[in-house]
Amino acid sequence: MLLRHCLALALAATLSATVAADEAKPAHTPSPKDLLAKSQPQEWRVPDPRNVLVMQLPQGRVLIELAPDFTPLHVANIRTMAHEHYYDGLVIERVQDNFVTQWGDAANEDESGDKSKLKPLGSAKDRLPPEYTRPYDAKLPFTALKDGDFYAPEVGFSEGFPAARDKAHQQQWLTHCYGMVGVGRDIDPETGSGSELYAVIGQAPRALDRNIALVGRVLQGMEYLSGLPRGTGPMGFYEKPEQRIAIRSVRLASDLPAEERPNVEVLRTDSVTFAALVDAKRNRFDDFYRLPAGKVDVCSVNIPVRDAKTSH
Amino acid sequence: MLLRHCLALALAATLSATVAADEAKPAHTPSPKDLLAKSQPQEWRVPDPRNVLVMQLPQGRVLIELAPDFTPLHVANIRTMAHEHYYDGLVIERVQDNFVTQWGDAANEDESGDKSKLKPLGSAKDRLPPEYTRPYDAKLPFTALKDGDFYAPEVGFSEGFPAARDKAHQQQWLTHCYGMVGVGRDIDPETGSGSELYAVIGQAPRALDRNIALVGRVLQGMEYLSGLPRGTGPMGFYEKPEQRIAIRSVRLASDLPAEERPNVEVLRTDSVTFAALVDAKRNRFDDFYRLPAGKVDVCSVNIPVRDAKTSH
Repeated sequence: MLLRHCLALALAATLSATVAADEAKPAHTPSPKDLLAKSQPQEWRVPDPRNVLVMQLPQGRVLIELAPDFTPLHVANIRTMAHEHYYDGLVIERVQDNFVTQWGDAANEDESGDKSKLKPLGSAKDRLPPEYTRPYDAKLPFTALKDGDFYAPEVGFSEGFPAARDKAHQQQWLTHCYGMVGVGRDIDPETGSGSELYAVIGQAPRALDRNIALVGRVLQGMEYLSGLPRGTGPMGFYEKPEQRIAIRSVRLASDLPAEERPNVEVLRTDSVTFAALVDAKRNRFDDFYRLPAGKVDVCSVNIPVRDAKTSH
Repeated sequence: MLLRHCLALALAATLSATVAADEAKPAHTPSPKDLLAKSQPQEWRVPDPRNVLVMQLPQGRVLIELAPDFTPLHVANIRTMAHEHYYDGLVIERVQDNFVTQWGDAANEDESGDKSKLKPLGSAKDRLPPEYTRPYDAKLPFTALKDGDFYAPEVGFSEGFPAARDKAHQQQWLTHCYGMVGVGRDIDPETGSGSELYAVIGQAPRALDRNIALVGRVLQGMEYLSGLPRGTGPMGFYEKPEQRIAIRSVRLASDLPAEERPNVEVLRTDSVTFAALVDAKRNRFDDFYRLPAGKVDVCSVNIPVRDAKTSH
């Protein structure tokens, strides 16, 4: 809500009662907070620690959930790099407004093209098959969004990620929504390895769907990637080395000692509460929203994440 | 593009020539840069200085073009406030990730509800009719987007702004795309005055369309609003007063001495070059984008702005 006064929130109930007495109108849609408060424990899942990247930045901790069912080779490569501490000391080198924040090896930006300065990839591969889509599999969980989509024949949520599928062409893929994480590459489609990653920080760049591999989604700490000064160089690269933000470490949660592992839960996208949240967003009607949109697009849906320790 | 190496850009022309010799494929879509380089001077317009707000922040200058044909009463009120220096010394008080950056009078956030601390609005009005839509007018310039829209019967561009219209209901309105500027209000629809404004910094919150008044669009300096640390309070408000960002001044360009006025040009949204840019985005095909989306949504279209002094 875009309230002028926080106080107005407190007044809402009173106003609502007054208006309700005056005119017939649809019931208020429940708020996300109310819906989440009524959720059941089994509607929440604990992400597999082998699928969770823990990135430590000077600003704070970023958690990324990987999607091995969509990009298995890239996820395996990223796990290898995290396991071997490849990302430690790399940098956020690019923040392009309304597009992406990208991190990787700053030596890639060396104009000399001298590859000898690149940090070695260790056991990880430097080239991988594209994995822009995966074969259609009716058995892969998919909660379709009944509203349809502007770009794809069918969209919805699969294992906690926004996704699309095309039965006619027997393909499915993750969609470029806010907070999704993808693999930077050169022109050659096989040059993506996961050594350069980006997160979407603006209007969903859906034209990238099926042109680049998406490997996961930011679960927490998105604000540390989106709330950064924009780069002033071409494509939003930082022009001065001192503007780059050093990555302290990136670990797989499964490589961390138990006491250091993040303890979060993600609302299941096949749960009743998630469906209720989507519907409340689709038909939002309350004292502030008087004209429900009646539709919701896949990239406007928030997938809730909570700290497990505070949720019981 | 999400290139690993900036160098790859230089290689693109070479690769392109090689590939073209090997296989039949569609011609590359022209790049925005190429299209803009061929634009004609008459395709660019200089915004009316009476419609341009010049906001000075510690980070830099933000230019906002107002849309008096859509929200005339709010624009008039905002002009009055700018003219009387109302905004000087107010603050950016809220940055909610993937939603909005909002500025206004921090005294609104005072929990005591003591309105005596509010900066007086001077000659400006404290309440205005909502202006969420305006009457349909076939004479108002409207360049329709042939792709259609997910939320509205018809979308396109009107006088440089993303817009929608509904002939059946005889209404038209501006759409909540990235960089659009709107009027914060309380629950009561008449409580918006323009004393609190917000800019969209995330996925287009189209559900706000027709629920709140949009008054314009950020032409330049968007990065100073989007690249800020996110607020950690409810709805993204900054929790500590020292986190707020002070607005040095907001002036109407027409109130500035000639030598201090911004000197920018905006590509006309009814121009041939703009149509070509939209089509290049819709069907983007090049060495990197191998699978064109075939469609483009109204909030994914960039409306180019350039410094007039460097453009000739």
